[in-house]
Amino acid sequence: MKNEKQVAGEKAAEFVKDGMVVGLGTGSTVLYTIKKIGERVKDGLSITAVATSIQTEQLAKECGIPLVNLADIDVIDVAIDGADEVDAAFNLIKGGGGALLREKIIASSAQEFIIVADSSKMVKQLGRFPIPVEVEIFGYPLTGKKIQSIGGVPKLRMNEGKPFVTDNGNYIFDCDFAAISSPEKLELNLNLIPGIVENGLFIGLVDLLITVDQKQEAVIQKRNEDG
Amino acid sequence: MKNEKQVAGEKAAEFVKDGMVVGLGTGSTVLYTIKKIGERVKDGLSITAVATSIQTEQLAKECGIPLVNLADIDVIDVAIDGADEVDAAFNLIKGGGGALLREKIIASSAQEFIIVADSSKMVKQLGRFPIPVEVEIFGYPLTGKKIQSIGGVPKLRMNEGKPFVTDNGNYIFDCDFAAISSPEKLELNLNLIPGIVENGLFIGLVDLLITVDQKQEAVIQKRNEDG
Repeated sequence: MKNEKQVAGEKAAEFVKDGMVVGLGTGSTVLYTIKKIGERVKDGLSITAVATSIQTEQLAKECGIPLVNLADIDVIDVAIDGADEVDAAFNLIKGGGGALLREKIIASSAQEFIIVADSSKMVKQLGRFPIPVEVEIFGYPLTGKKIQSIGGVPKLRMNEGKPFVTDNGNYIFDCDFAAISSPEKLELNLNLIPGIVENGLFIGLVDLLITVDQKQEAVIQKRNEDG
Repeated sequence: MKNEKQVAGEKAAEFVKDGMVVGLGTGSTVLYTIKKIGERVKDGLSITAVATSIQTEQLAKECGIPLVNLADIDVIDVAIDGADEVDAAFNLIKGGGGALLREKIIASSAQEFIIVADSSKMVKQLGRFPIPVEVEIFGYPLTGKKIQSIGGVPKLRMNEGKPFVTDNGNYIFDCDFAAISSPEKLELNLNLIPGIVENGLFIGLVDLLITVDQKQEAVIQKRNEDG
């Protein structure tokens, strides 16, 4: 039997059509999307893809999916990615894997942005998962202080005893803001801090959410634009 | 006779006191501030300084000003910098020199932020000078498109036939937004674009403005916090 990640991930591959430019996300659910797209490419599907991380780039290559550089394309037809948390309004926390900046650039440029998530990712209110915040190395302790001044508890992400460095050469603070009552407001406040390159709040970007119901079947939900 | 840049620049050095941590800006006016501070250090003034650019770091060293890394300090007592444009509310456009990100991190962390500007920099409304916007190289054409979608005309800054690269390894778009009716709103909109690291609008950060009157004398103005 397929696990939830596989059910949701594979379902998303159906939204990829011939001729599309596809943004490929990073993580353990979208992994199944990428593998499924790879199977369809072997069966004759003709697409080009852009990857949100070096890790995804390697996987896509192994699956035989043709890749292009983001600098060489004008549009992204559809982007598919996972999330660390998804609330009822389809706002997200992303960046546990460290690729949030590239993921957000691609998500915000895609005509259609699809999130795949197993049921454990669905929450009433964002904030149990700390918000990954990518910061310039220059002056990062001062940037951490600014995050504290707006109510967050920043923890520098480490890797084998050294600060973790992103694909873009920056550090990440994992920031605990407890339960987040207004993700929109928090995103604005984070964006106003010089030294923050990007934050892991994805607000109003999702078009489709693919998750899994109690029967272990994929459920597709469209975001209510009026909500 | 001293030129305007020298009059304003040297005046600012008077605000530096024994024991202070001082943020040193970048440009042709603050150059005179740095040289004056250097003279005072030779006369016994004891300070430490942080530099906003590699260029300023070299100048400060030549002037005998002791430098520390931004990562090693907790507070900045005063930061002094120039600007490309200053409006009546002391909002700024900065970044013509390419150091806007470090300048903004230091300005926003300083207890007191002083701007030195000759009279040619004073404007009624910001926008004649294009806003420098520092962007991640990854996906920069898509980021340029987003800038267009909020009304700007982005022009990639070049240097000897190649894109100019900042001290932080990013590109700069010089963005023409024509006359800017609400700098606050424009800054929020720019901050919401993934891929933009920082923009050259400095809103509500200035404490003191030092400029030059028609008699070629320095004039010190405090920002009206209520305005």
